[in-house]
Amino acid sequence: MSCNYLYRSVSHRLPNFICYTPIAPTILSLKSPFCPSRRRRHLRSFSISAGNSFTWDDVFRVPESPQNDDSALSGFFDKIKLCNRDLEKQCEFMPFVIEDQIIGYVHHRFADFLKPFQNVFIFPQDNTYGSHFECYCTLHPNLSTPNDRTKAVANVVKSLGELIPGIRNELFPVASAFGEQIFFSLERAAAPYFGIKAYGVHMNGYLEKDGQEYLWLGKRSEQKATYPGMLDHLVAGGLPHDISCGENLIKECEEEAGIPRSISHTARPVGAVSYIDIEGYRMKRDVLFCYDLKLPDSFIPHNEDGEVESFQLVPVTKVANIIRNTSFFKANCNLVITDFLFRHGHIRPEVFGYLKLLQSLRSGHCS
Amino acid sequence: MSCNYLYRSVSHRLPNFICYTPIAPTILSLKSPFCPSRRRRHLRSFSISAGNSFTWDDVFRVPESPQNDDSALSGFFDKIKLCNRDLEKQCEFMPFVIEDQIIGYVHHRFADFLKPFQNVFIFPQDNTYGSHFECYCTLHPNLSTPNDRTKAVANVVKSLGELIPGIRNELFPVASAFGEQIFFSLERAAAPYFGIKAYGVHMNGYLEKDGQEYLWLGKRSEQKATYPGMLDHLVAGGLPHDISCGENLIKECEEEAGIPRSISHTARPVGAVSYIDIEGYRMKRDVLFCYDLKLPDSFIPHNEDGEVESFQLVPVTKVANIIRNTSFFKANCNLVITDFLFRHGHIRPEVFGYLKLLQSLRSGHCS
Repeated sequence: MSCNYLYRSVSHRLPNFICYTPIAPTILSLKSPFCPSRRRRHLRSFSISAGNSFTWDDVFRVPESPQNDDSALSGFFDKIKLCNRDLEKQCEFMPFVIEDQIIGYVHHRFADFLKPFQNVFIFPQDNTYGSHFECYCTLHPNLSTPNDRTKAVANVVKSLGELIPGIRNELFPVASAFGEQIFFSLERAAAPYFGIKAYGVHMNGYLEKDGQEYLWLGKRSEQKATYPGMLDHLVAGGLPHDISCGENLIKECEEEAGIPRSISHTARPVGAVSYIDIEGYRMKRDVLFCYDLKLPDSFIPHNEDGEVESFQLVPVTKVANIIRNTSFFKANCNLVITDFLFRHGHIRPEVFGYLKLLQSLRSGHCS
Repeated sequence: MSCNYLYRSVSHRLPNFICYTPIAPTILSLKSPFCPSRRRRHLRSFSISAGNSFTWDDVFRVPESPQNDDSALSGFFDKIKLCNRDLEKQCEFMPFVIEDQIIGYVHHRFADFLKPFQNVFIFPQDNTYGSHFECYCTLHPNLSTPNDRTKAVANVVKSLGELIPGIRNELFPVASAFGEQIFFSLERAAAPYFGIKAYGVHMNGYLEKDGQEYLWLGKRSEQKATYPGMLDHLVAGGLPHDISCGENLIKECEEEAGIPRSISHTARPVGAVSYIDIEGYRMKRDVLFCYDLKLPDSFIPHNEDGEVESFQLVPVTKVANIIRNTSFFKANCNLVITDFLFRHGHIRPEVFGYLKLLQSLRSGHCS
């Protein structure tokens, strides 16, 4: 009920923004957390839209949710869905195989754009890799070194122009699993078009005061190309091919929140979350390494790369309600914070759906 | 190499006990963590044997392992295997179905013992529940209430006599998933013969001193029917049908370690681990809710129910080496402590196999 209340109250303040249509919580079925619903479509359209805004005041005004009824976790399941869209469309993709290992997935219609590049991509007639298509995608055998493959695929990506927007000139390693042999490197923006797994480091910065936990949240700059103005962790970033998770985190801590190495080196790796998100030709298969950093009370974060507008310290119980009742967070941050809520005892086994939600934090290929 | 060293050194002290045969670490393949091996068979025979003993001195003498080479996690994978035996034999079981929901699995040869009880068990010719058998197991439709089912199945279990040893007169709830409708209750010792999911609460009691973490470990009484003399968490217990996880934990804290409610109520639920273990007719499908309790430095645990011989405070880094290099722990405790090691940053993403090990902590049906 409080959920509906929020949607109404915020709709008054922010037309065309968050899920303002009062929708009965019953459509959020815990038994089929991935079934489509009106609310889901609404969240999706929000999560990728730009140009809307909300303030920290709106964030702090999010009301409490009931914590012990059977629908207490429904807002969390909703955010899992937000990161795992259209899973039923996996059958529209064929495996992308190198040296007998599946390293990605290519949409059958996107494959049509690759087929003219016969010196780079080939499509053998063989469904041994589990696709319901009669073929899979692979690279031409003449491309036998990582360097050759990287250059050849980069040229194709360049040739495809606006079909793959948002080129960042940032290379991601391509392997069947984390730490395994790297077959080549690929432009970050192109990774989802080839269903390549991408890895990131996400850190919750927290502190304990008077027996209560607080999280430092960032609000993304309105100038960011992705998720402008939305809430974020204290620190997060993709994992490029030439740096370890730990070193990358320390670098991001410095750039995004002004956290010196003397503090950031105490950040704890605490596990990982994963998801598969399908949108058009894109299959995002992301694995996020999660970190916790317990900060001194006196530390105040300050952004150094212009990507964060401001930071606020928010009680963890309030953060849980923001996840439950709004779409203020950049989508995948919801998963990393939900993982934090589990590990820090803020979600308890007595609540219906506990194990299902825990499992769903690793809905993707966590490897 | 230190692994082999340990096996040799301990074999000298403890003939017929732990894995004393020097075996090359290479047989512990990370790529196929469930493949059979000589070492695995050895560990298995140890884990279920009784009458062997080791001392706390042996525990504290366990040497360090290399932490950064590609085999650094192999000892952990070994313990995952120890709890997930003979997974390839799942095909020997047929689903046990009530009201269209799979609530367990019955070995086809164990089913032969149930077939004479035609007023209780029936075996419809229908493989809609995913078995490769042409039938599934269910209860007679005349048994329509939980009470009727509980009594009827209890009578069968009693009639089967020594086929199901170790009757405890402790009832477990039978449902398709945690928190779902309870169809009936079943004697705890019989649960694995019907592939019923069983739940437990396991707690790591820890403290921080001088920047180092320590775990309180228990050493089980030599009189225990299961895993006598082995290492255990500070507190652990099965979850009966009439108590919540949190309340059960507080009860077990009092009985097993003399921890008063004033301390135990601060225990944090932090997630769950799961496994499927097949042995003969038995399929154990266990889910263990994990808890962390940060204890005051001054607290000394004391056992009140005679199940624990003694407690010791052990540095977490030492505990990690005990898991890696010995089979001193009761098998499933290894999983719960490995989960602790992940959450507390003692296993880092830079180590080969990180994500695979993380995933394998929930190898069973975690629902």
